[in-house]
Amino acid sequence: MAITGRNDGTAGPIRLGMVGGGKDAFIGAVHRIAARLDGKFELVAGALSSTPERALESGRALGLAEDRIYSDFTEMAKREARIRNGIEAVAIVTPNHVHYAAAREFLKRGIHVICDKPLTSNLADARKLVKAAENSDALFILTHNYTGYPLMRQAREMVAAGDLGEIRLVQVEYVQDWLTEHVENKQAEWRTDPARSGAGGATGDIGTHAFNLARFVSGLKVESLAADLQSFVPGRQVDDNGHVLLRYENGARGMLWCSQVAPGNENGLRLRIYGSKGGLEWGQENPNELWFTPFGEPKRLITRGGAGASEAGNRLTRVPPGHPEGYLEGFANVYSEAAAAIEAARAGQPAPAGTLYPTVQDGLEGVQFVDACVRSSSRNAAWVKFG
Amino acid sequence: MAITGRNDGTAGPIRLGMVGGGKDAFIGAVHRIAARLDGKFELVAGALSSTPERALESGRALGLAEDRIYSDFTEMAKREARIRNGIEAVAIVTPNHVHYAAAREFLKRGIHVICDKPLTSNLADARKLVKAAENSDALFILTHNYTGYPLMRQAREMVAAGDLGEIRLVQVEYVQDWLTEHVENKQAEWRTDPARSGAGGATGDIGTHAFNLARFVSGLKVESLAADLQSFVPGRQVDDNGHVLLRYENGARGMLWCSQVAPGNENGLRLRIYGSKGGLEWGQENPNELWFTPFGEPKRLITRGGAGASEAGNRLTRVPPGHPEGYLEGFANVYSEAAAAIEAARAGQPAPAGTLYPTVQDGLEGVQFVDACVRSSSRNAAWVKFG
Amino acid sequence: MAITGRNDGTAGPIRLGMVGGGKDAFIGAVHRIAARLDGKFELVAGALSSTPERALESGRALGLAEDRIYSDFTEMAKREARIRNGIEAVAIVTPNHVHYAAAREFLKRGIHVICDKPLTSNLADARKLVKAAENSDALFILTHNYTGYPLMRQAREMVAAGDLGEIRLVQVEYVQDWLTEHVENKQAEWRTDPARSGAGGATGDIGTHAFNLARFVSGLKVESLAADLQSFVPGRQVDDNGHVLLRYENGARGMLWCSQVAPGNENGLRLRIYGSKGGLEWGQENPNELWFTPFGEPKRLITRGGAGASEAGNRLTRVPPGHPEGYLEGFANVYSEAAAAIEAARAGQPAPAGTLYPTVQDGLEGVQFVDACVRSSSRNAAWVKFG
Amino acid sequence: MAITGRNDGTAGPIRLGMVGGGKDAFIGAVHRIAARLDGKFELVAGALSSTPERALESGRALGLAEDRIYSDFTEMAKREARIRNGIEAVAIVTPNHVHYAAAREFLKRGIHVICDKPLTSNLADARKLVKAAENSDALFILTHNYTGYPLMRQAREMVAAGDLGEIRLVQVEYVQDWLTEHVENKQAEWRTDPARSGAGGATGDIGTHAFNLARFVSGLKVESLAADLQSFVPGRQVDDNGHVLLRYENGARGMLWCSQVAPGNENGLRLRIYGSKGGLEWGQENPNELWFTPFGEPKRLITRGGAGASEAGNRLTRVPPGHPEGYLEGFANVYSEAAAAIEAARAGQPAPAGTLYPTVQDGLEGVQFVDACVRSSSRNAAWVKFG
Repeated sequence: MAITGRNDGTAGPIRLGMVGGGKDAFIGAVHRIAARLDGKFELVAGALSSTPERALESGRALGLAEDRIYSDFTEMAKREARIRNGIEAVAIVTPNHVHYAAAREFLKRGIHVICDKPLTSNLADARKLVKAAENSDALFILTHNYTGYPLMRQAREMVAAGDLGEIRLVQVEYVQDWLTEHVENKQAEWRTDPARSGAGGATGDIGTHAFNLARFVSGLKVESLAADLQSFVPGRQVDDNGHVLLRYENGARGMLWCSQVAPGNENGLRLRIYGSKGGLEWGQENPNELWFTPFGEPKRLITRGGAGASEAGNRLTRVPPGHPEGYLEGFANVYSEAAAAIEAARAGQPAPAGTLYPTVQDGLEGVQFVDACVRSSSRNAAWVKFG
Repeated sequence: MAITGRNDGTAGPIRLGMVGGGKDAFIGAVHRIAARLDGKFELVAGALSSTPERALESGRALGLAEDRIYSDFTEMAKREARIRNGIEAVAIVTPNHVHYAAAREFLKRGIHVICDKPLTSNLADARKLVKAAENSDALFILTHNYTGYPLMRQAREMVAAGDLGEIRLVQVEYVQDWLTEHVENKQAEWRTDPARSGAGGATGDIGTHAFNLARFVSGLKVESLAADLQSFVPGRQVDDNGHVLLRYENGARGMLWCSQVAPGNENGLRLRIYGSKGGLEWGQENPNELWFTPFGEPKRLITRGGAGASEAGNRLTRVPPGHPEGYLEGFANVYSEAAAAIEAARAGQPAPAGTLYPTVQDGLEGVQFVDACVRSSSRNAAWVKFG
Repeated sequence: MAITGRNDGTAGPIRLGMVGGGKDAFIGAVHRIAARLDGKFELVAGALSSTPERALESGRALGLAEDRIYSDFTEMAKREARIRNGIEAVAIVTPNHVHYAAAREFLKRGIHVICDKPLTSNLADARKLVKAAENSDALFILTHNYTGYPLMRQAREMVAAGDLGEIRLVQVEYVQDWLTEHVENKQAEWRTDPARSGAGGATGDIGTHAFNLARFVSGLKVESLAADLQSFVPGRQVDDNGHVLLRYENGARGMLWCSQVAPGNENGLRLRIYGSKGGLEWGQENPNELWFTPFGEPKRLITRGGAGASEAGNRLTRVPPGHPEGYLEGFANVYSEAAAAIEAARAGQPAPAGTLYPTVQDGLEGVQFVDACVRSSSRNAAWVKFG
Repeated sequence: MAITGRNDGTAGPIRLGMVGGGKDAFIGAVHRIAARLDGKFELVAGALSSTPERALESGRALGLAEDRIYSDFTEMAKREARIRNGIEAVAIVTPNHVHYAAAREFLKRGIHVICDKPLTSNLADARKLVKAAENSDALFILTHNYTGYPLMRQAREMVAAGDLGEIRLVQVEYVQDWLTEHVENKQAEWRTDPARSGAGGATGDIGTHAFNLARFVSGLKVESLAADLQSFVPGRQVDDNGHVLLRYENGARGMLWCSQVAPGNENGLRLRIYGSKGGLEWGQENPNELWFTPFGEPKRLITRGGAGASEAGNRLTRVPPGHPEGYLEGFANVYSEAAAAIEAARAGQPAPAGTLYPTVQDGLEGVQFVDACVRSSSRNAAWVKFG
């Protein structure tokens, strides 16, 4: 089916709505900055909360017109699809269990969906959402934002070009410490509630990012995995730490560690990939540096936009090397890729060559990862076929 | 004189104009992203180039209304001051020699000025601009953007609180490599032309940043300096490297190194301050980390927004620790501080407590720094009284 | 049985012999420097090779008296035990499969044994060697040299003192790249020959170090493990990469990665341990720094001998902080601990309080680790009880 | 004059004496370990203290024969020159003011001198010592130990080979914090006493190291300098901080900072050199890494003994890359170079090609550096011709 989305011939910034992301939400604010950074989107409508007063208050704080403030995403989808200059795209930034139901409403009305990860809180929903996206003429973009970092684009390109030789090893970890003790706040509450986050805790919240990034850069498919998950903090209903062994289809092997209970680690997403000819090492907390280690040669430090940086990453940078870009810029790159695809869709065109963003299929793989980890762990870390 | 600016009772985003920043300009694009990041400004007018076709083309590319696209900043100042919903603030992002003339036109019409550094290309202009700002009821904000980094706010606060004891030493450097060889491009061209950049090359372009940041964090005033400036690349008319000794009023001493010819350095602004009780170390290329070294205790790594981070910096952060913020976020913080002051001015109020941005006086000090360096160097690095 | 060793009432440096370590050997030279560094040992005899000419040539190069140069370690043990001023201790630095037979000969004659790791090339030998050591009145020291680093001593002490709270997580890795391709040299040859190195390749050569260091610092016992071992380089008969999941008796979990095929990694032994109250991070390649991360506080960098360094490590340092000590100093610390114990044994005394070195029991655990990894991996990474 | 030294036809380790270095001395112990590390020297005599009881106690603790323990270095020189198997070389490790008088006695008797830095406590002594060395048939080695680091050898070779192009900039600093407050101990006492240390405090103690290392690596001669010295701690009689501008004969410029009052810095000797084609960056606290930054290419990390390491450094390494070598190994390299030269001298031969160690001439330059700094600073940091 051709991707066109709702096409009313308008130009100018892409009209964006948002589901979730009211007061005190974390990721909603991030999405809004990301959407704003490059001036490609304009937020014009929102169902920022399912509580009407809260939705209203949040919408006003963002300067939305009163009649574009909703507390019910279905109503929003219906009306926005109908009105002149209704939204062309929606950002879904709710807790995980709402993703599917919300996305469905917009997809079926041809409104492009930009959805936070993980795709859904369970595998059944994920499969239904894949179908919904396939049956829609709208785009579906999943904000695995770390794929937006320029040097991760370059890393992917280098692997694909064979700079590392045949890939043998993938070491990826995503390590935090904010759940080291029992925490009571909005963020902790839903992320540790299996009804809202899904069966995975750390595996779902950050393990999916690690899994996705390794997949994105290596290009490799996992064939099977064995996972040993733990809940270290008494009373916690989901895993707060996970150790995972990976076997890839090409014979490569990997380890994935995700944790929210490792004191001193703030947002330590680190990826190391090694092949028969060389390696790559990168850490999210200083994303402007990528180590390239060709076997038998000195290690080289490639900097974003600097000497040794390639077009695959440079097309997503805004400022010269040495002027650090960070998390928001990487996130905004997903939005800028989405914008390129949506603008092309306005004209019934495919996205420009090189446009790249995580898809609903990537989202499905993420949910499959969580599901496989939970199943493996419940069977004493037995190997589980992936996918 | 009360700061009020043009006050027509409007609400909503601050209406912003821009002088300079047309196609191929570097810093204009940065200002636009910075203005956009937090949603506080809306760009509605511009004299983006003094060449009419270029101004038009650039303005259209930014989506400006045709009648708000100018090629003459004086005309723009006059008309925008007159029309309903004219601009409330202007960003001046031209080469240095235009700053004074442009700023003057807006200041005298009550339009707030956000001006790139250095303040002017010569000391006479700088003094006149100070007067112009003093005589205006508009605000003047200088984008010494590195003062916008949250950890530089915290560093300033720690010094002021006495955490380092009496300050003895300031070591600051700003090191680049992009002018290691003769370069021909728009950026290099005007920055190495004394008629447009002023008498200082590296000293003016980046030395002023280093000088300002040391001043901002230490709170100390330089009493005298001795400078040894060089132009290493044949044919270059301004310094591309400067070595400066500093003596502060309180007896502290310092060294400042600025260079654009040190291969391997991209944008290496580094500040180290030591007192009788402890030290601080920070580097711009990884701005989310601040070392605090109390004498006789283990070194502590303070992270933006993390454990040990204080309110002075946290008020300017958007995302949790470990999610790196960079150059654009720091730059945007100057704009967000400006917005806070401008919004208060709309109501005839002073800026909220804690609002802090570089002023025209800081700009004057920067130009005095360049002037003193050039004079000292021409006298074989003799000591020159500062100010 | 009281530890006394051969005691002929002599004073002065400890008279040392060496088995293995002839020309072109790597670790023999390291042992000799380590023995010499603090002036506590004097090398006076050697069976440096089983090839007589090679033994002679190597012994002469080291300045040994001709009648103290042997090519048969049994002959050496017999004669040295008999002669006046014969050796008091022997360093065994042969390939692994010789360790047991050699150590036995010296132990039964009361000559202290300083033996390279892993203890033996198979579990049966390891058990016999434990017996032999238990039945001897001589000391047995295993050179798991990384336990000699001062900051590893401090880390162990901090964990034992509860500074990290209850230990939850152990992440340890030992990563190299020198076997990325097929290599032909003396070192590679025997280390990849199961008949000489044992059933483990990377697991035996470096995995045992990682395992031992985690054990040493954490104080925790592994209850079971699951290992996925690989031989990536065609034709290689032992593993060159191993991924291991660990479960500790106290409920803690861990991951261990050892590899000799990860380009860009020279000798990357890294240990991270996290508990309910804080964490520790350390890397062998810059061993003078230890990160301590108490939960909710800024990270602290403890330097060897510097502020925050404790007596447990300081007793093993020679130069002030900032004067880096490295691999040889760490190795020499095992020898200095051995010397302290041997000197005490001369007087029939126990080693001074605080003296600490890896024992034959640690060596047995290392061989058990390799054995468990190989068994688990052959059963598709099934969990295997440890010990 | 041919360098032969006392040559009595003996072989075996070089017989070494020591002047200074008794109990509680710091650098004497370092010299002894350095001499011992590679097994080339044997300490057989000492005038470890001028206090007889202390000399005796210290000599016994080191296992010296009673009749080789002296308390008067002249007596030691006389007797050792006379007796069979007397010392061939002497290490002078006293406070600075004793260097000249002691060295003279040994030099004139053909005993090689290995002397700690700075050469002397004043310029007159330095000049006399140069003469004494020139008139002797013995060798004179100055332990500017940082030139012994393998990667500093490689750096020197790379500069000489033109890998950096024409050198433009030298940035060197040596920063400590141990004198941040008033300290009372043996080390602090004599190092801050101008009668014993000389007119320079930090400049003499560590500034000379920084100056020498920059000279060693760059190969450049300073033409003039301007120095601003301070004594921050009340009552201190010598400088504890120095800021120095350098002008080199080839037109290159430099900055040198030495300090003993910068909290958080333990032994921060850092060297950065930039030329028209590239740069080098190195820090002593992690001496196994050298950054090479060819202009326009990614930064390369050269590791000691690793990929990209060259023969100039590799000949001075003992263990493979990733096994860190540190301060003692670097110091020992000066001794091993001295040993190579002394062994050659035994045979009346010149030192083997490539043998390299700091000479009495380097020592003179160091004292000239201190003298020039003090003179410049007393004249308000005026430029002073060097040499």
